[in-house]
Amino acid sequence: MFSKVLVANRGEIAVRIIRSLRELGIKSVAIYSTADRDSLHVQLADEAVCVGGSRPQDSYLNMQNILAAAIGTGAQAIHPGFGFLSENAAFAEMCEACGIVFIGPKALTIDLMGNKEHAREQMKKSGIPVIPGSDGYLSNVESAKQAAAAIGYPVLLKAAAGGGGKGIRRIENQDQMQQAFDEAQSEARLSFNDDRMYLEKILENVKHIEVQVFCDDFGHAVWFPERDCSLQRNKQKVIEESPCSLISEDERQYLGKLALKAVQAIDYRNTGTLEFLMDQAHHFYFMEMNTRIQVEHTVTEMVTGIDLVKAQVMVAAGAKLPFKQSDIKLHGTAIECRINAENPQKNFMPSTGTINYLYLPVGNLGMRIDTALYPQAKVTPYYDSMIAKVIALGHDRNEAIEKLKRLLGEMVITGITTNQNFHLAILNDPEFLRGTMTTNYLEQDFMPRWKGETQQ
Amino acid sequence: MFSKVLVANRGEIAVRIIRSLRELGIKSVAIYSTADRDSLHVQLADEAVCVGGSRPQDSYLNMQNILAAAIGTGAQAIHPGFGFLSENAAFAEMCEACGIVFIGPKALTIDLMGNKEHAREQMKKSGIPVIPGSDGYLSNVESAKQAAAAIGYPVLLKAAAGGGGKGIRRIENQDQMQQAFDEAQSEARLSFNDDRMYLEKILENVKHIEVQVFCDDFGHAVWFPERDCSLQRNKQKVIEESPCSLISEDERQYLGKLALKAVQAIDYRNTGTLEFLMDQAHHFYFMEMNTRIQVEHTVTEMVTGIDLVKAQVMVAAGAKLPFKQSDIKLHGTAIECRINAENPQKNFMPSTGTINYLYLPVGNLGMRIDTALYPQAKVTPYYDSMIAKVIALGHDRNEAIEKLKRLLGEMVITGITTNQNFHLAILNDPEFLRGTMTTNYLEQDFMPRWKGETQQ
Repeated sequence: MFSKVLVANRGEIAVRIIRSLRELGIKSVAIYSTADRDSLHVQLADEAVCVGGSRPQDSYLNMQNILAAAIGTGAQAIHPGFGFLSENAAFAEMCEACGIVFIGPKALTIDLMGNKEHAREQMKKSGIPVIPGSDGYLSNVESAKQAAAAIGYPVLLKAAAGGGGKGIRRIENQDQMQQAFDEAQSEARLSFNDDRMYLEKILENVKHIEVQVFCDDFGHAVWFPERDCSLQRNKQKVIEESPCSLISEDERQYLGKLALKAVQAIDYRNTGTLEFLMDQAHHFYFMEMNTRIQVEHTVTEMVTGIDLVKAQVMVAAGAKLPFKQSDIKLHGTAIECRINAENPQKNFMPSTGTINYLYLPVGNLGMRIDTALYPQAKVTPYYDSMIAKVIALGHDRNEAIEKLKRLLGEMVITGITTNQNFHLAILNDPEFLRGTMTTNYLEQDFMPRWKGETQQ
Repeated sequence: MFSKVLVANRGEIAVRIIRSLRELGIKSVAIYSTADRDSLHVQLADEAVCVGGSRPQDSYLNMQNILAAAIGTGAQAIHPGFGFLSENAAFAEMCEACGIVFIGPKALTIDLMGNKEHAREQMKKSGIPVIPGSDGYLSNVESAKQAAAAIGYPVLLKAAAGGGGKGIRRIENQDQMQQAFDEAQSEARLSFNDDRMYLEKILENVKHIEVQVFCDDFGHAVWFPERDCSLQRNKQKVIEESPCSLISEDERQYLGKLALKAVQAIDYRNTGTLEFLMDQAHHFYFMEMNTRIQVEHTVTEMVTGIDLVKAQVMVAAGAKLPFKQSDIKLHGTAIECRINAENPQKNFMPSTGTINYLYLPVGNLGMRIDTALYPQAKVTPYYDSMIAKVIALGHDRNEAIEKLKRLLGEMVITGITTNQNFHLAILNDPEFLRGTMTTNYLEQDFMPRWKGETQQ
């Protein structure tokens, strides 16, 4: 087992990883930018190293400085969290070259799955259903038009290296193709230094369903019950839950086996998540794979009782998977609300400031709040606006919702504006209560109806 | 189901009950003393009624005012929590007379089990092993000497109406009997207005093991895996855990069946706990029964995933038990540290003051902190010094301990003195780590060795 691990991240996920390391008896090294000097992850870690200035590219994306911090502190491994360098194959390779374990899959696998078009081709080869789309890259706007005509509009034009909603355009008809192609390609070039494009048919009225898998070095692989992450705004997840209330046990088993088939074909290691779209007939289509821990791993932890970050560390250290497939059981329903520092009534404009009064309703059964907030903590403009994850576990979906409503009703965060009341309004919405919401629900159904007030 | 319930308590247990009521969709009525005007339970409840002055007898024990508050607000039931009126048969009877449901067993049962000697005789009748002791009450010091001689010193002289360590004396030999008997009897008279005494043999090197049961009105009864509450100071529990690491599955089943036999013989309703002593040969001896929810119910909730307060409310409303025996499963080990406002280095003198900075390490899997603390909350001298319960759930006892150490290491409470570091020292003690501690451990083994410093 490692004796010291560097956590190459910030905010709640860095805090969350440091806590699991401590419980494993492993020393933690935090890294931080000059803006994050007083952050909770810096206070909680055993050691902390400043790796650069406030801008992500100067610090949390500064590969040389982070590696130097790891070597300088004697860390044997780096946990990248999510975002930042977590899916950066070059960084994983640099770690390997320095004799430091990158807690995640091999660099080659990150690379393979990081290119969304490669991943799609790989899955097709393994017999995993994928969304109908172009074959290989689109060399120019003409080939894009041909591919789109063959599968039928509307289509989604995507950058192969894509992520975070960059380099993506929805195209309704042939006339929109030229401009959209040019824009998306140039965005892809700027964002990823890679302008290869492909396209997929847009499936309407679908749910975003994802399956997390875990593999060790000894050929053991397991899958976790699905998460329903259909509640999205701007392609960002807002509320996640596990299991999906519309999926039967047979479908769950089918999805799990599908996910295992997919990752065994690529000799996957550690944890990762396969994202699918599910249409109204409950057909599943592979979308992409995340080769890292995700924000929403917490609902899976709550509903199964398994600490996935501890497992990541153990498996990366060469241990066998600490659980078998039969140990993975659903103990109810878990739902998570992502609390963002933003103002839903001002077009979700990010909010910054110093936390003044803070009341987190810790207590009672089946709740969890992952956050790096504390009284006087600063929320700066440099990083992602997600500042807390409020998670409830209930015996059924309804109990989880009631618990979430209570938690959000009690929680007090002053000094910044958050989407707390926006969440409360969703939790009271009949369509959400039915559990039938698709990926369009939030933007096309709920928000036009929402008056910016909480319906209690 | 009830639409409104009055919570006749204060502090963390009132907050905990109010939260479960809210999740059940039931309105809550808090009661408070003048000293508790700004308390969290008052803030969280849907309504709040002041029932008297700071002293418990003026407010939280003021039966007339509490009943008037229930009637005035239209509450259909009263949850008494623990302490205060929770085991007061007269109060339960008054509730019944007013047509208000007392959430607990019937007044008759409270009365029967409240008299410790009656309870003992009742258990003997049902074939439950009890601690060897006197037959019936001791009419005078001579009969006490005879009974003690028959079973052998040392003995424990106890007030039948006892509780909270009042009216109890340890007697080593015949010469100590006269003075101890007079003192204990007069203490019992003053404390309980009842000077009936009995005595029991003192069993050395025993564990305090207790079994919680739950019964509904339809003849269903279930038991919960045992709790080990051996870690005590001044007869008060300090750390509790479930299950006991020394007890086998066979013994667990035996204990559960014993507990069911005991409560079915007295037509028990709602929840209650049978307390046993376990000697080194793993013989169990009934000590007493608590006819209410206990402080440490939380470890059972964490390790089974069942909300016991919700079940109390449902069963009191006439519903069937919401779980079967087969639903009650151990998901690891849960351990709780009772955080008291006291100074362990000054003979545990109670500490009072205003909470200044407060950091509760909410986050990650398997933790829970039940507390009514918030920044600027006041800790007054009028009530019990327990201000928080920190609970950790691990896959095994060791993981729970590591998690507890982390939680206590992170938690910051300023403005008062607490026993936080005392707990940390215990959690690092080899004897505690072995799990073999008996009821003597803390006072006779650990504390003489403890230098008032945390061994990290």
